[in-house]
Amino acid sequence: MIVVMKKEATPADVNHMVQRIESLGLKAHVIVGTERTVIAAVGDDRKTHKESLESGPGVAEVMPILAPYKRASLELKPEPTQIKAGSLTVGAGTIGVIAGPCSVESEEQILQCARAVKKAGATALRGGAFKPRTSPYSFQGMKEDGLKLLAAARDATGLAVVTEVVASEDVPLVAKYADVLQIGARNMQNYRLLEAVGATDRPVLLKRGPSATIDELLLAAEYILNGGNPNVMLCERGIRTFETHTRFTLPLATVVYLHAKTHLPVVVDPSHGTGHTYLVPQMAAASVAAGADGLILEVHPDPERAMSDGYQSLNFEQFAATMEMCRKVAGALGQKM
Amino acid sequence: MIVVMKKEATPADVNHMVQRIESLGLKAHVIVGTERTVIAAVGDDRKTHKESLESGPGVAEVMPILAPYKRASLELKPEPTQIKAGSLTVGAGTIGVIAGPCSVESEEQILQCARAVKKAGATALRGGAFKPRTSPYSFQGMKEDGLKLLAAARDATGLAVVTEVVASEDVPLVAKYADVLQIGARNMQNYRLLEAVGATDRPVLLKRGPSATIDELLLAAEYILNGGNPNVMLCERGIRTFETHTRFTLPLATVVYLHAKTHLPVVVDPSHGTGHTYLVPQMAAASVAAGADGLILEVHPDPERAMSDGYQSLNFEQFAATMEMCRKVAGALGQKM
Amino acid sequence: MIVVMKKEATPADVNHMVQRIESLGLKAHVIVGTERTVIAAVGDDRKTHKESLESGPGVAEVMPILAPYKRASLELKPEPTQIKAGSLTVGAGTIGVIAGPCSVESEEQILQCARAVKKAGATALRGGAFKPRTSPYSFQGMKEDGLKLLAAARDATGLAVVTEVVASEDVPLVAKYADVLQIGARNMQNYRLLEAVGATDRPVLLKRGPSATIDELLLAAEYILNGGNPNVMLCERGIRTFETHTRFTLPLATVVYLHAKTHLPVVVDPSHGTGHTYLVPQMAAASVAAGADGLILEVHPDPERAMSDGYQSLNFEQFAATMEMCRKVAGALGQKM
Amino acid sequence: MIVVMKKEATPADVNHMVQRIESLGLKAHVIVGTERTVIAAVGDDRKTHKESLESGPGVAEVMPILAPYKRASLELKPEPTQIKAGSLTVGAGTIGVIAGPCSVESEEQILQCARAVKKAGATALRGGAFKPRTSPYSFQGMKEDGLKLLAAARDATGLAVVTEVVASEDVPLVAKYADVLQIGARNMQNYRLLEAVGATDRPVLLKRGPSATIDELLLAAEYILNGGNPNVMLCERGIRTFETHTRFTLPLATVVYLHAKTHLPVVVDPSHGTGHTYLVPQMAAASVAAGADGLILEVHPDPERAMSDGYQSLNFEQFAATMEMCRKVAGALGQKM
Repeated sequence: MIVVMKKEATPADVNHMVQRIESLGLKAHVIVGTERTVIAAVGDDRKTHKESLESGPGVAEVMPILAPYKRASLELKPEPTQIKAGSLTVGAGTIGVIAGPCSVESEEQILQCARAVKKAGATALRGGAFKPRTSPYSFQGMKEDGLKLLAAARDATGLAVVTEVVASEDVPLVAKYADVLQIGARNMQNYRLLEAVGATDRPVLLKRGPSATIDELLLAAEYILNGGNPNVMLCERGIRTFETHTRFTLPLATVVYLHAKTHLPVVVDPSHGTGHTYLVPQMAAASVAAGADGLILEVHPDPERAMSDGYQSLNFEQFAATMEMCRKVAGALGQKM
Repeated sequence: MIVVMKKEATPADVNHMVQRIESLGLKAHVIVGTERTVIAAVGDDRKTHKESLESGPGVAEVMPILAPYKRASLELKPEPTQIKAGSLTVGAGTIGVIAGPCSVESEEQILQCARAVKKAGATALRGGAFKPRTSPYSFQGMKEDGLKLLAAARDATGLAVVTEVVASEDVPLVAKYADVLQIGARNMQNYRLLEAVGATDRPVLLKRGPSATIDELLLAAEYILNGGNPNVMLCERGIRTFETHTRFTLPLATVVYLHAKTHLPVVVDPSHGTGHTYLVPQMAAASVAAGADGLILEVHPDPERAMSDGYQSLNFEQFAATMEMCRKVAGALGQKM
Repeated sequence: MIVVMKKEATPADVNHMVQRIESLGLKAHVIVGTERTVIAAVGDDRKTHKESLESGPGVAEVMPILAPYKRASLELKPEPTQIKAGSLTVGAGTIGVIAGPCSVESEEQILQCARAVKKAGATALRGGAFKPRTSPYSFQGMKEDGLKLLAAARDATGLAVVTEVVASEDVPLVAKYADVLQIGARNMQNYRLLEAVGATDRPVLLKRGPSATIDELLLAAEYILNGGNPNVMLCERGIRTFETHTRFTLPLATVVYLHAKTHLPVVVDPSHGTGHTYLVPQMAAASVAAGADGLILEVHPDPERAMSDGYQSLNFEQFAATMEMCRKVAGALGQKM
Repeated sequence: MIVVMKKEATPADVNHMVQRIESLGLKAHVIVGTERTVIAAVGDDRKTHKESLESGPGVAEVMPILAPYKRASLELKPEPTQIKAGSLTVGAGTIGVIAGPCSVESEEQILQCARAVKKAGATALRGGAFKPRTSPYSFQGMKEDGLKLLAAARDATGLAVVTEVVASEDVPLVAKYADVLQIGARNMQNYRLLEAVGATDRPVLLKRGPSATIDELLLAAEYILNGGNPNVMLCERGIRTFETHTRFTLPLATVVYLHAKTHLPVVVDPSHGTGHTYLVPQMAAASVAAGADGLILEVHPDPERAMSDGYQSLNFEQFAATMEMCRKVAGALGQKM
């Protein structure tokens, strides 16, 4: 950490801070500048010492040097992590494609979807059984009945099942049916839930919260890794900005940045990331070009009659065309899809 | 709702949408404009019909007319809601002040705090026992021991206790000790938790998520109200923007806007809303001037040694001076504090 | 336009608004809903009537139906505009590549650059002679001497020259040397300057301001089109969001959205859009996959010693590799580059 | 500056950077940490060395220590600057109030306005003659005729005139009539214009761009100060965020932050900062409570018929009531208004 002192800080302030730093088990190096003094605090400063040093007398700012996460970092594990869950492989040169409806609505709907997305090249099936909805008046999902239908669709097609879990107490139930546990964007900082999935042996798809920084996303992953579960896929699904022509803003540079910081694979969700069907195909192709390790896409047999998210769902033909385009890009760049 | 058709929409598209609207139980009025046709859909459109209409053929956009929340709306209940919890009164002309440390750290710390903030005029005590922390390596709170210390501080001072609950399974335990249940910003859309506090008889302090829209905040409140608990205080604690000189951006116009939309009282948190001690006093006074029904402030006997949030905590003198300034503003504007 | 009345609006308020709408030359249709009345105002509402109706008694909100721009819209001109300027062709299936240093620094630097980027496949040369700099203490460009060096580089390589003009009074001078006039992001709403370039016969590269909405960008283009210059390339160069790991956030969905709204070609600037050299190559490839009609890239013989923007510049090898990757993606998707 | 090296940086990289730092005239201190090496570069680093160091081999990040502005800084001039222009005094304990219409529309309108705002306590008159408008189809202002009407209103009431100048070539003309030159938000980084007003003897009201950082605002002020004009009022007028219930987000903590960094006075614009008439009065009072040195408010005799900005203008009664409320808050806090 670098402790920057204010211009008006006194020698007593500097001494005080040197002692504080040393009392935290760090070594202090004082550098007297032309206008200000800074103190470098050397040692492992991943604990929240930053916060307490900031309150010291005469301190202008504290700048951390080390990333706050450890297990997720490329420094700890330089080679990319590849995650397998049944039919799904994600990372280290293989692009996984998770597709299916926002919500499981009926046996026919999910089976039809599973067959169609498999035929077009998807390697896993998505579908929500527990739905966190902004309004209490919206459809909340089929719950365990939905999980059973997902499992039946897996039996019929061989596709791995990716589905969301919204509360720690549901983890055992969802893990019984699912191959991959999805943590939704609204729950990215639901630490009790992160700990619960960290204690299972199921791979986790962790979605970035719409206002989470990348450090916060990696620290959320750290909760899961720290709980003993090494199989975390990070998912960029769009952030909240001033833009209104898209529901969220999909920042694909996240993919490249994450590959420079973490060994965990990065999945992109162009459906939530744009919020409009017509934007999805090209943003899926762009995600592949940016180096995404996976895609998660909403597909529905009849988007106009979907119980949720129809406005951003592809129909079967659109999904097949999207896959075709993505495969061309992946092929041109030498990636498997 | 107003369904705006694309310029190139065909009469068949318009007919299709009229039928869709009527199949949803709404009445359709077609208005042929000079460049586009729009269809007004009349009726109660609070359910998520908007989403499905957006996927219709030839549809450019769907614009809702009614607010998505109902019980929280001023249209349902025009007079402001006043909430009482022991020593704390919030709303309808009375400004409540909730003050105390970010985390309960020890018996001495919390008792000392409770006495100091009471003396300076606070009407409730805050203090975290269950702490949701960004990093798994940070201090996570004293849990039930912390709750017991809060209850002891209430016994000693008479101050109502406001404390956070982070998971639905903890609600009975926290409700045993607390006068007001706080839902933190990260959990604003943890619907299982909202339902759980909606089923208790404890008033709830609901913090706005840093990227939540006001409609999303009011819909989160709607979950609680809909569960049978009418006592929800909304709390503005800052949003995430491009600004970096403050930790969050505190938009005080929220207070005025909410007063025009909802009967629920509005509390402001200038500690999290700015993230720096030196910004807190004037932003607290500004909150009062903007019409806030309450303040929640972090106060610590020794911020430099606080186990969390020291950088944004007031010490006792700073808190007393802040109260003094706020009381002057409240007095000038004819409000009780 | 749709004028939404408040729930408490009186019949007199509604009558007043009907008269106001008709006094503006529009036709009013009153629709009485279950909870609110809305008035549809039919006619060409591109003028700023919206603003004045919003101040009417009992008005809750005014929602426009028509886009505020006209000449830029796809509704006016459905086929894509292709722009040619010397060696550069952009749009309608052809991807132009504009590359070169942030600033012209010397004859050797710009000539070396021009030759290197041409060899790697660029179709135009960029380079700043008038530099708008955040700090008055930074290098401000070589001014006319820089323009002369750019022209010399064009003579030597045949590459069209793209360079920024920062003030209306400089337009004649810059137009003397440049093939394309660039309007920088900071000047997107410098209307005097937009009018000045609108009066020339030089194609214009118009950069989006970092907090401009797409409508604002298209209205800025409208100033140029309205001035009689039909050749405007829109340029997405990143927006300001809460993200800090990139300098700006590059929202590639803009490309797809603009293609659905306007006939003008869309260029992407991954150098400014990310702000870090290592993020540029994959974001360039992603831009092509998203359907960009052009790329503008910063390239410098020795980025570490560049007088500006070295941190986001590619060196010659990096640029050649980026071009190679982009060509593969373009080829896979059937686009010329 | 602190140069943070990557974990994998080699001793050669570190040596290279030490030499680079020294070649820039700074002194280098190498600090070998447990995981990384950092190099402190001591000296005046206000020039853009940061940028070029960032491109060095093995460099992870460069963190500046000194603020990039100098003349605007409190370190250079610790006592607050008070600015006087005719009837207007702003700063150092005196709150100036600038009020009037968005646009000058007619002699009657501006005279009526001037008299009404003076009566209610305003100390200067605002009014736009040159209007930068988002759309080329909107009213663009009365130009010099408008300036003459402003001067006539000054003659009639004694109020100082504050009006916008949009291009460097207009500065002499506007300065002939105006007491204070306003730089609008869209022109905050129009450096040619900043230099032009920096060369006059008229005080300048510099509005923050909606996505400008505070450092960028202070650097824009620095252009003016550096040009020899010491009288710059900074104006917070709202930033662009994801919020849509207000047109911009008004972050009042800016006032407190600026007071801690600069001696220049800070004016708040609650009209543009909220974009809705009903939000203005309380946000004006909150601005005063936050410590603003001045207010700038839009007032119109008949907002519904205003040629611009009617939706955010106060009528005369609303302005008088707002002044009343603000004076109470100012009085309670011991400030002159």
